[in-house]
Amino acid sequence: MITQDTDFTAALQHAIDTKTKPVGSLGRMEALAARIAQIQGTLKPSAETCLLTIFAADHGMAAAGVSSYPQDVTRQMVANFLNGGAAANVFARSLGADIRIVDSGVAGEPVDHPALVSRRIGAGTANALEGPAMTGAQVDAAIAAGRALGAEKTHAVACFGEMGIGNTSASSLVAAKVLGLPVEDMTGRGTGLDDAGLARKRGLLGKAAARTEAHLDARTALMEYGGFEIAMMAGAMMGAAQAGTIVIVDGFIASVAALCASDLMPEAAAFFIYAHRSAEAGHARVLEALDAEPLLDLGMRLGEGTGALLAWPLVKAAAAMLREMASFDSAGVSGPA
Amino acid sequence: MITQDTDFTAALQHAIDTKTKPVGSLGRMEALAARIAQIQGTLKPSAETCLLTIFAADHGMAAAGVSSYPQDVTRQMVANFLNGGAAANVFARSLGADIRIVDSGVAGEPVDHPALVSRRIGAGTANALEGPAMTGAQVDAAIAAGRALGAEKTHAVACFGEMGIGNTSASSLVAAKVLGLPVEDMTGRGTGLDDAGLARKRGLLGKAAARTEAHLDARTALMEYGGFEIAMMAGAMMGAAQAGTIVIVDGFIASVAALCASDLMPEAAAFFIYAHRSAEAGHARVLEALDAEPLLDLGMRLGEGTGALLAWPLVKAAAAMLREMASFDSAGVSGPA
Repeated sequence: MITQDTDFTAALQHAIDTKTKPVGSLGRMEALAARIAQIQGTLKPSAETCLLTIFAADHGMAAAGVSSYPQDVTRQMVANFLNGGAAANVFARSLGADIRIVDSGVAGEPVDHPALVSRRIGAGTANALEGPAMTGAQVDAAIAAGRALGAEKTHAVACFGEMGIGNTSASSLVAAKVLGLPVEDMTGRGTGLDDAGLARKRGLLGKAAARTEAHLDARTALMEYGGFEIAMMAGAMMGAAQAGTIVIVDGFIASVAALCASDLMPEAAAFFIYAHRSAEAGHARVLEALDAEPLLDLGMRLGEGTGALLAWPLVKAAAAMLREMASFDSAGVSGPA
Repeated sequence: MITQDTDFTAALQHAIDTKTKPVGSLGRMEALAARIAQIQGTLKPSAETCLLTIFAADHGMAAAGVSSYPQDVTRQMVANFLNGGAAANVFARSLGADIRIVDSGVAGEPVDHPALVSRRIGAGTANALEGPAMTGAQVDAAIAAGRALGAEKTHAVACFGEMGIGNTSASSLVAAKVLGLPVEDMTGRGTGLDDAGLARKRGLLGKAAARTEAHLDARTALMEYGGFEIAMMAGAMMGAAQAGTIVIVDGFIASVAALCASDLMPEAAAFFIYAHRSAEAGHARVLEALDAEPLLDLGMRLGEGTGALLAWPLVKAAAAMLREMASFDSAGVSGPA
């Protein structure tokens, strides 16, 4: 639970308001600092270390052509992550974040690499267009594996990313079912479908959505349509929240995982800071449902946790502001006349 | 001059588009990377080091009550900067940027501190409500001192900040005159005036604006209304551009300096990256005139270069993306089907 004690909240606002700056002049950075202080239960918060965990898995429905990329790209991108060549690696190196790659269930043989964290639930999900993507045992295993990984308290800040060809489709379906909205409202171009591809994807997802009731609880929605990586990320967000770690939520897919985590564990939501507004259609609806106002709006739609990494310096600086800035008193600066 | 050679531009777009990500999926980070590459004239750009220079000076018109803070605060905040306690110090430390403080003309005796860079043009400007803020010799000296400081190529990225009670008023007047717009359109609450204070400030600035013609060139506008720190910052932006350094432009006051620098040296504008949309009224008009779309929109209005510092990690990561990310070919990743 975050710290909502009245005395603490009053002391926190006093600390922010007496820093050597006009009241409110750091805008959203002040609210961000307050949130971090509440998560950590201290007026001297710190967000100096950050770990990005990328969950990779494959989706049975990729075979139906819901993405512009072939399914092999999931495995190829895992290799790219392990070699340090992807956008997430480069951003992490540039900004000083650590990174780990989790095989949540990539199609084919297990990926063999000393740095890979293997938490395979299967060799990709079943085709959710035709039946449940996973069994009840699989969704529970994915969430549990995620919770355990998320609960490892090695860094002040946890970012989560994903890789899985077809996973914007899976996320659209999961979000539609959890929110009880038409999947059409949640469907976008993913990695870059053209108009014909988008129309085809809309048709396929509409058919898949028709298989089940309009509204599903998060566990059932993940079982019916979700990917292993999405369920594991939802679990990891719950585990991180339980451990008191700040969670920076990336774009569309990560926000759907956060939506599921908030449904499964309502008290987790207070630990989530939303990084950026994705260009993927559907993200706006999910953010609205979560009452979330992301920090960045850069038209990004890559995933991998890239948006979360870019938001981390803001989180780090907001914590430092509260922890280290002088007050009018301590610095001998006059207040307003 | 930035690199606009056709072959280079084509090679640059090809390099960005063949990175292991869907085309365009990093949104504005891609355009940012391209701009940095053009500034540095290389497909392997780097923005790993950053220096924030804060120019401090006083304004004769502060005595008339255009700010909610007393004039002494300028000098007190210089001491706070030198002691490392201000928001700009904290952000710089947290993000790994260097910082230097320049006395451009603080009221009273010269500030005495071993770390302070002294470039005093005077002990504050004259009262611009009644007559020119400075002489022609003073504005030329301020711009020249700024150019020399800006041209010292010690870091890949230059951020510029300011401190000076009354300097949103000075900036409103300078911007109004350079753009030929009514000063009312440019006038906001500064550090936090209430409605009565804002009405009073509007009246004073309207009277000051009426002293001169509706449209002035940048040098004359700075001489009539500008602060030493604003003129010096404009010069520093010109010097940095001439040295080929990336300039991150902070909020309202820095944008007015950038407007002046662009007027005085049109080729400098290509080196300017706009950090954030300030909550100060008037910034939107200046950004529009500059055709600038800032990276961040966090409701900040503190100055000191704080917004520029928060944008630097984005600039650094964008450069790293272009420099270090694998291509589809080099990583053996399949493209779209």
